[in-house]
Amino acid sequence: MTTVHERVDTFHDNDQKPIGHGRMLRKEDPRFVRGRGRYVDDVQLPGMLHLAILRAPVAHARIVGIDTSAAEASPGVKAVVTGAMLAQQNLAWMPTLSNDVQAVLATDKVRFQGQEVAFVVAEDRYAARDALELIDVEYDILEPVIDARRALESHAPVIRDDLEGKTNNHCFDWETGDEAATAAVFARADVVVSQDIVYPRVHPAPMETCGAVADFDAVEGKLRLWSTTQAPHAHRTLYAIVAGIPEHKIQVISPDIGGGFGNKVPIYPGYVCAIVASIVTGKPVKWMEDRSENLISTGFARDYIMRGQIAATRDGRILAIRTDVLADHGAFNGTAAPVKYPAGFFGVFTGSYDIEAAYCKMTAVYTNKAPGGVAYACSFRITEAVYLVERIVDCLADELGMDPAELRLKNFIRPEQFPYTTKTGWVYDSGNYEPTMRQAMDLAGYAELRREQEEKRGRGELMGIGISFFTEAVGAGPRKDMDILGLGMADGCELRVHPTGKAVVRLSVQSQGQGHETTFAQIVAEEIGIPPADIDVVHGDTDNTPFGLGTYGSRSTPVSGAAAALVARKVRDKARIIASGMLEVSVADLEWEKGAFHVKGDPGKSVTIQDIALRAHGAGDLPEGVEGGLEAQICYNPSNLTYPHGAYICVVDVDPGTAQVKVRRFIAVDDCGTRINPMIIEGQVHGGLTDGVGMALMEMIAFDEDGNCLGASLMDYLIPTALEVPDWETGFTVTPSPHHPIGAKGVGESATVGSPPAIVNAVVDALKPFGVRHADMPLTPSRVWDAMRGQARPPV
Amino acid sequence: MTTVHERVDTFHDNDQKPIGHGRMLRKEDPRFVRGRGRYVDDVQLPGMLHLAILRAPVAHARIVGIDTSAAEASPGVKAVVTGAMLAQQNLAWMPTLSNDVQAVLATDKVRFQGQEVAFVVAEDRYAARDALELIDVEYDILEPVIDARRALESHAPVIRDDLEGKTNNHCFDWETGDEAATAAVFARADVVVSQDIVYPRVHPAPMETCGAVADFDAVEGKLRLWSTTQAPHAHRTLYAIVAGIPEHKIQVISPDIGGGFGNKVPIYPGYVCAIVASIVTGKPVKWMEDRSENLISTGFARDYIMRGQIAATRDGRILAIRTDVLADHGAFNGTAAPVKYPAGFFGVFTGSYDIEAAYCKMTAVYTNKAPGGVAYACSFRITEAVYLVERIVDCLADELGMDPAELRLKNFIRPEQFPYTTKTGWVYDSGNYEPTMRQAMDLAGYAELRREQEEKRGRGELMGIGISFFTEAVGAGPRKDMDILGLGMADGCELRVHPTGKAVVRLSVQSQGQGHETTFAQIVAEEIGIPPADIDVVHGDTDNTPFGLGTYGSRSTPVSGAAAALVARKVRDKARIIASGMLEVSVADLEWEKGAFHVKGDPGKSVTIQDIALRAHGAGDLPEGVEGGLEAQICYNPSNLTYPHGAYICVVDVDPGTAQVKVRRFIAVDDCGTRINPMIIEGQVHGGLTDGVGMALMEMIAFDEDGNCLGASLMDYLIPTALEVPDWETGFTVTPSPHHPIGAKGVGESATVGSPPAIVNAVVDALKPFGVRHADMPLTPSRVWDAMRGQARPPV
Repeated sequence: MTTVHERVDTFHDNDQKPIGHGRMLRKEDPRFVRGRGRYVDDVQLPGMLHLAILRAPVAHARIVGIDTSAAEASPGVKAVVTGAMLAQQNLAWMPTLSNDVQAVLATDKVRFQGQEVAFVVAEDRYAARDALELIDVEYDILEPVIDARRALESHAPVIRDDLEGKTNNHCFDWETGDEAATAAVFARADVVVSQDIVYPRVHPAPMETCGAVADFDAVEGKLRLWSTTQAPHAHRTLYAIVAGIPEHKIQVISPDIGGGFGNKVPIYPGYVCAIVASIVTGKPVKWMEDRSENLISTGFARDYIMRGQIAATRDGRILAIRTDVLADHGAFNGTAAPVKYPAGFFGVFTGSYDIEAAYCKMTAVYTNKAPGGVAYACSFRITEAVYLVERIVDCLADELGMDPAELRLKNFIRPEQFPYTTKTGWVYDSGNYEPTMRQAMDLAGYAELRREQEEKRGRGELMGIGISFFTEAVGAGPRKDMDILGLGMADGCELRVHPTGKAVVRLSVQSQGQGHETTFAQIVAEEIGIPPADIDVVHGDTDNTPFGLGTYGSRSTPVSGAAAALVARKVRDKARIIASGMLEVSVADLEWEKGAFHVKGDPGKSVTIQDIALRAHGAGDLPEGVEGGLEAQICYNPSNLTYPHGAYICVVDVDPGTAQVKVRRFIAVDDCGTRINPMIIEGQVHGGLTDGVGMALMEMIAFDEDGNCLGASLMDYLIPTALEVPDWETGFTVTPSPHHPIGAKGVGESATVGSPPAIVNAVVDALKPFGVRHADMPLTPSRVWDAMRGQARPPV
Repeated sequence: MTTVHERVDTFHDNDQKPIGHGRMLRKEDPRFVRGRGRYVDDVQLPGMLHLAILRAPVAHARIVGIDTSAAEASPGVKAVVTGAMLAQQNLAWMPTLSNDVQAVLATDKVRFQGQEVAFVVAEDRYAARDALELIDVEYDILEPVIDARRALESHAPVIRDDLEGKTNNHCFDWETGDEAATAAVFARADVVVSQDIVYPRVHPAPMETCGAVADFDAVEGKLRLWSTTQAPHAHRTLYAIVAGIPEHKIQVISPDIGGGFGNKVPIYPGYVCAIVASIVTGKPVKWMEDRSENLISTGFARDYIMRGQIAATRDGRILAIRTDVLADHGAFNGTAAPVKYPAGFFGVFTGSYDIEAAYCKMTAVYTNKAPGGVAYACSFRITEAVYLVERIVDCLADELGMDPAELRLKNFIRPEQFPYTTKTGWVYDSGNYEPTMRQAMDLAGYAELRREQEEKRGRGELMGIGISFFTEAVGAGPRKDMDILGLGMADGCELRVHPTGKAVVRLSVQSQGQGHETTFAQIVAEEIGIPPADIDVVHGDTDNTPFGLGTYGSRSTPVSGAAAALVARKVRDKARIIASGMLEVSVADLEWEKGAFHVKGDPGKSVTIQDIALRAHGAGDLPEGVEGGLEAQICYNPSNLTYPHGAYICVVDVDPGTAQVKVRRFIAVDDCGTRINPMIIEGQVHGGLTDGVGMALMEMIAFDEDGNCLGASLMDYLIPTALEVPDWETGFTVTPSPHHPIGAKGVGESATVGSPPAIVNAVVDALKPFGVRHADMPLTPSRVWDAMRGQARPPV
């Protein structure tokens, strides 16, 4: 790991003071490293029952009948519930708030393998699962539709015959950009490159699976729900709408969460089943997925069949980009799936390049797969867009015979062009791409690598160097088209300073491991001068935090981080007025430094923020008109998204005999604007890079022709370990966001977004001697072997 | 029960619209009537241990030695802790914040019977209590000082020899008013009456005793404390100061509380012991008093030996009042005991009368009794002051041969004199006394009662009619001299409207049965138009509510009620701006009615508060510069106290043969300003009147000459039941407080304050044929018998 402070200082030296206490240890880790984290599955309530879900064994079938009598008679079983029973309460289907409905429990048909068909509530988990096997479901098997291209065929079986008048599997058509203008540019371009590219279906596979403990109190009419959600407030509002429980009678508690990565944004049927089960039994009910359930039924991402086209001049000036996407949304367009269109894709599919025209057309279809609409870092389909553009830029470089680094440097949006409006109308807030790229090339020793590659190629060795340069659009935020939950995008934040000068900051966002308890304490500490150790960060409990949308799309720091900084400034402004009373000088005569106000020119005459806090709570008089207490709240709606960027360079070696890819080096230079805790940022980047290795080389949720999911366990769905990744080499530049109060942009998903194209580009580069221009992920040995031999396996 | 609406309408017809939903059923009762309230003793935590306290069997003794070895060896015992052990951690004594220290566990001496000497922590309550008997304490018995007059004698044993240089039992001297001016008025008065009066030591005896569950998490450094406190925020701050745990790492949860009446304001050693026990054992620890512990060691009140003097003209014009008080503060001036002086006593000892001069002198002493500094409704010693003044006014009437009603009517502060500044500098905010008095007399049929009495006296029957007229000073509030916890007196309140238009209001005050969940929902509903059922009231959890001082001294409605109304108005102001954007008219063109804004002159064009809430959370654009969300917070510090008043008339029959007093009728006309929920007000009044019957006729914590407490069980300390009380007859007038946003004044303690003098005056009136002018409470048959025979038992 290398950090290059000197280089950064050259660009933005005024942003280099550490925020809060910089590289401090994480406040949450004392409990995590002692095994004292408290997850949903740790919740034990008196009299708690356990719920297990019966799932469809087939991908597409009509339900002829369900016999639950044997299950009901099974020892310890308290209730067996089917879709037909839910239908009597009008609860068998739930609105997804993304222009669709989704079955809570199947009534008419099952539409994907793993779909929820019935559930059992029993005294313990074992009794519940044993009873599942006693439920007798008679299925009338239908032809499954697994391939998105097949779904569009005129004689394909209609999956969503529950939707009135529906006679095909078409889900949505979307487009952005100017089709005619783009066609005109393509028509006059020297060079046009077109490439079909598949981003396969992958799964976020968080350490902790999904689950909930529902505790409905019939006397108070109150539902208390511990759940593995990334968005407790949005879930509360949605439950109020879906289940009809008044919103103020729902408490959603999201305790420690073992990773989310987008998998924990949607509302799954299991949550609703747990709520129903608690209402029916009058007891608390726990539902926890096992690994297989999580892998077959929740939160898929990608599954895009794309064609990318790029037009350029002969000397390497990129003129236009055109893409055509067939998106597989699975059987339902679930909660948190795109509502209007995949906004992030539309925002950044033209990459980091200053071009003349762009157009994107996308068709989404239903298939007999689990709902796939959710975001796996990064949300809003930015990952797919970045992969597409960075792949076709490399294809163009190949076509032109140009070095891919040189091609990118030639086409970057220039610093003076920011804020830069893309051809689809998005406004990149700030950026300075060339220094980031140059730093990555310096760290990599790019020229030397190319020499080494040349040399190795001479010896028949397959070394590849892959570059990707990404711009993300994160921090939703102000764009209604990124409002995946239909609830607006503002985030609340509250800061309260106690009488003795300790503080608590309450966030609407919530952590799945990102270190919010540390980062937000640092942001507030920086503004208010109370040490981070004296600031508690509260989140993940709708009864105890202000409303806001939750943690996804790298939005915590861009949105809630801004809220925290601004609310701390509000408190400081009030403290200043109280201090002026205590020191008997005017507000203008006060200077703020390190948690205290002192009289200008007389540093000895000062009051600390702790003195002020005690005064604010009654220890003495306050200036006329000043309310007691020392606190503030804010509901923050940013004026724009933030646009982090980064330059990644990957070096791979491919074994010519086994086609095994080894990632030898990976250089990542990230620019996420102002950096709060560099250690946490590096952790996020390391995790995202590892994600990228998995997606590029190993991960794919595949289906057989009957619609059986072939990735139902971690034996079949491979995720990377420390053995598959190199020592990461990281650097950074700092281009602050101009509209964020401390200039931070968010980094949670950058590396997941940016690393797959770098790795694939490196592998393809390694295979250049074989004339390979493209090969689809995951680049397993067999796929690489086929590519070397000029064959192509079916992409999915 | 009679309510006289007509009469009220005559006076204040514009204040008669019901607040919120008026006489609605209490929102908290569904859980209480089903036995689903959740009290501290209902808290069960995994691995929880139980604490029992060894208490001093004698009132005054030196501790020679303590042997805990047998207790430590007792089955199930986890720890035995003595004062010596606490002393090693510097925790044996705690500051009371009332200019004193108090022993957590006795080290040098025990100073009252029941004082905490050691504690045992064990696996269950039985093991803990059994082990107490195995602790061997060797005492060197000292002479106890039980009588406050003895305490002042020069050769009395010095109780507080722990205080450096202390050579006597003197605690405080306080005075208020102008001594010389008062003496001058007395010198020229036609008539002077002097009466020695004792208000005996009584105990609030709440249904639920005190207790706590302490759960210290060593990894997080966080203390979670469920406790039976009336003031969770103040306790948190005090624990931070006393125990050194940072304030943001302490969560005090005050769940459902089974009555407080002032008993649950102080910090008792038991709470601190529970905290220490959890830290020492690493486990959650529960401590719950039994009834006897509660009666002998917690929260006594009164214990005043008073001399009241009143000067008047021959025709019944009261000129001046002078009082001299000897106050028994017990062994320690505990937390929540008067800090500077007994403010409420000083505020209202001149009663409801417009007089020329007043003076009060008070001496407080230490005795070998439990700390008695706390308030038993009413706080601040208002109860004693009202009793004194209403008793001596009756003595004056007797001296003058005037009817006591006529004497009072003649001397009332007149309506045009409000705001009225008393001779000790307190400003009564509003009042209109004569109509209140006349209503009580009308309801009683006063003239007819006097005729009946005359007639009965002729037959040798002992019928008495007693009047009291009180003015209380409540709602602390702005006076720093009423700041019994030294933390200022402001209260925070927050209101948040959820996206679907349901709301939650968070209070710093907390309920011990007063119906806050209903009353505060009504106050907010009245202002914001959301039904009370859709408004949750959250209180009693320091992690989840804004800072404020707690519920005592009838301050919830005067202070937090004002805060709730004002914060709701803030939210309505914001809603108005959003509505103007939704309806596309200016703010000035909007009219508010029944939870909706409509365009002036066009009621069809309107938006409800629920529509506005959804819009505020992202359902559409907001006007320029308006933050998202629909919420507000306030920290409210009233500009003055509120001064409820009332006229009470009691009719008693005394059995000439047994001296048994029967309260035949009781008429109570209360003026607590604007009334929110009349049913809850009546409930408070009924409870307070019952208190009064107890104090007047039955209750006294007595001690024998060795200092043994003779009221250690409810077999000995008698409290009234339904059998001892009549059907209450209540009426009301409404004189709004001019500085409270809705004009409310608070009623929680009125009846407790106002009823004892009415009952005693009635009994004394009944005994007039025997020449009785005064008899001290409690007027048990033996005391009444003695009075009839011209004897007087020792007052305490």
